[in-house]
Amino acid sequence: MKTVTSLSELRAERAQLPGPVGFIPTMGYLHAGHISLVQQARNECASVVVSIFINPTQFGPNEDLANYPRDLPHDLVLLEEAGVDLVWMPTPEIMYPPGFQTWISVEHLTQGLEGGVRPGHFRGVTTVVTKLFHAVQPQKAYFGQKDAQQAAVIQRMVKDLDFPIEIMICPTRREPDGLAMSSRNSYLNPAERQAAPVLFRALSAAKGAYEAGERSAEALRQIVGAVLHTEPLAKLQYVSCADLDTLEEQESVQGKVLLSLAVYLGRTRLIDNIILG
Amino acid sequence: MKTVTSLSELRAERAQLPGPVGFIPTMGYLHAGHISLVQQARNECASVVVSIFINPTQFGPNEDLANYPRDLPHDLVLLEEAGVDLVWMPTPEIMYPPGFQTWISVEHLTQGLEGGVRPGHFRGVTTVVTKLFHAVQPQKAYFGQKDAQQAAVIQRMVKDLDFPIEIMICPTRREPDGLAMSSRNSYLNPAERQAAPVLFRALSAAKGAYEAGERSAEALRQIVGAVLHTEPLAKLQYVSCADLDTLEEQESVQGKVLLSLAVYLGRTRLIDNIILG
Repeated sequence: MKTVTSLSELRAERAQLPGPVGFIPTMGYLHAGHISLVQQARNECASVVVSIFINPTQFGPNEDLANYPRDLPHDLVLLEEAGVDLVWMPTPEIMYPPGFQTWISVEHLTQGLEGGVRPGHFRGVTTVVTKLFHAVQPQKAYFGQKDAQQAAVIQRMVKDLDFPIEIMICPTRREPDGLAMSSRNSYLNPAERQAAPVLFRALSAAKGAYEAGERSAEALRQIVGAVLHTEPLAKLQYVSCADLDTLEEQESVQGKVLLSLAVYLGRTRLIDNIILG
Repeated sequence: MKTVTSLSELRAERAQLPGPVGFIPTMGYLHAGHISLVQQARNECASVVVSIFINPTQFGPNEDLANYPRDLPHDLVLLEEAGVDLVWMPTPEIMYPPGFQTWISVEHLTQGLEGGVRPGHFRGVTTVVTKLFHAVQPQKAYFGQKDAQQAAVIQRMVKDLDFPIEIMICPTRREPDGLAMSSRNSYLNPAERQAAPVLFRALSAAKGAYEAGERSAEALRQIVGAVLHTEPLAKLQYVSCADLDTLEEQESVQGKVLLSLAVYLGRTRLIDNIILG
């Protein structure tokens, strides 16, 4: 496994890799969710490239950029074990040199959900992913379903801009108690960690109601809220029952819908989702 | 020379071309300026691809989209003669299918000059050029210096987004009387056509003053305006003396500056520029 920092090193090493190349962009502090993306890429591609870059432009001014967890030595061990060929770890100065002023915006899909409470977040995501795609030039790129809106936004961008890249969305990996794996789970204190499975319990309760015939989106949102309310440490930020393609809030559930939520546990913000239909 | 319409046809034919591939994006109604770009690409690349697409998203609501000149049969003769390998002529429906919502914005460089009087113009340009680049995947792409701000914006975008493409900016081609070649020259009636060289005369007068030692940007702008004023059919929209890199208006000329103007001749809007320093 090779590791590179500069764009010119990345391009030189990338040019040596046999295709098809699979690519997994990450912000590091890797967990089994990331590694499952690597494994799928390993199964489907001749070469696997991973980037580790905590992208400052997708964090709001009051978000957790400075405190975002880091453990590069451990990340590199995991990636080596998983059979990655090339790891790119650019610096913020490499990605955003002085004078940088070009941005990608996906308009409608970014209005609600995460985009509604994290203004500018998706502009940072789409811009950095475009830069990473141009640098790595993969045939396939892998993202997790846990960040459902991100997955939808990236797929839309790739389609709209005719990127010659296939986007693979991989299932959310969960801890045994149902908590969706996330680098941000490391922020939780023991009590918050114990409370955290309430997100998946809430989604699962709504799924149970859906499977029993409930088709009112508001009723499903209410069920999520009610289960969340049973956990005193959890504070619901939003719950959404939206069309899976347009991400528009629904009144009645028809076709595939994305049931998603954002929750504060103390100062830690967690998101999760399931697809119904 | 092959001609294709759909994106899938384009990709299939592109995959057969030996590299490096040179690419010239055009809106058709080709003139010797376009052909000089093709010739430079022919000299520098193993294969040459040209697109012909009148991009609706770079026209404002009161601009000349509906009347933009077209002569596809003549265009194809010129391109065949110039040794082009592949011509892509997508439709608006191919480029902007229902649900399209992703845009590229270059922030600062697009604020003044053409961007100041044509809001949204450069967002359309950068978005379509990104799509064309992703579809054609050239190693080099060729643009004319006549659209100086466009050249600067495209270069900035390619640098900021790490496109693996070299941008070549080629000199403005002029008619014997100095008029910069442009598809829009076809709009001019005989009297307007006779008046049109006043743009280059005005720029040349300012250049003469510069070469004689004038370093006040305002004095150079005044000279351009004064020469324009001698032509009753010409109405100056703007004249600019800006830093060539930042496109910010200058007070005194230091280093390279872009002297540019936009002029109405009747209902026809023409632009031209020269570089000083």
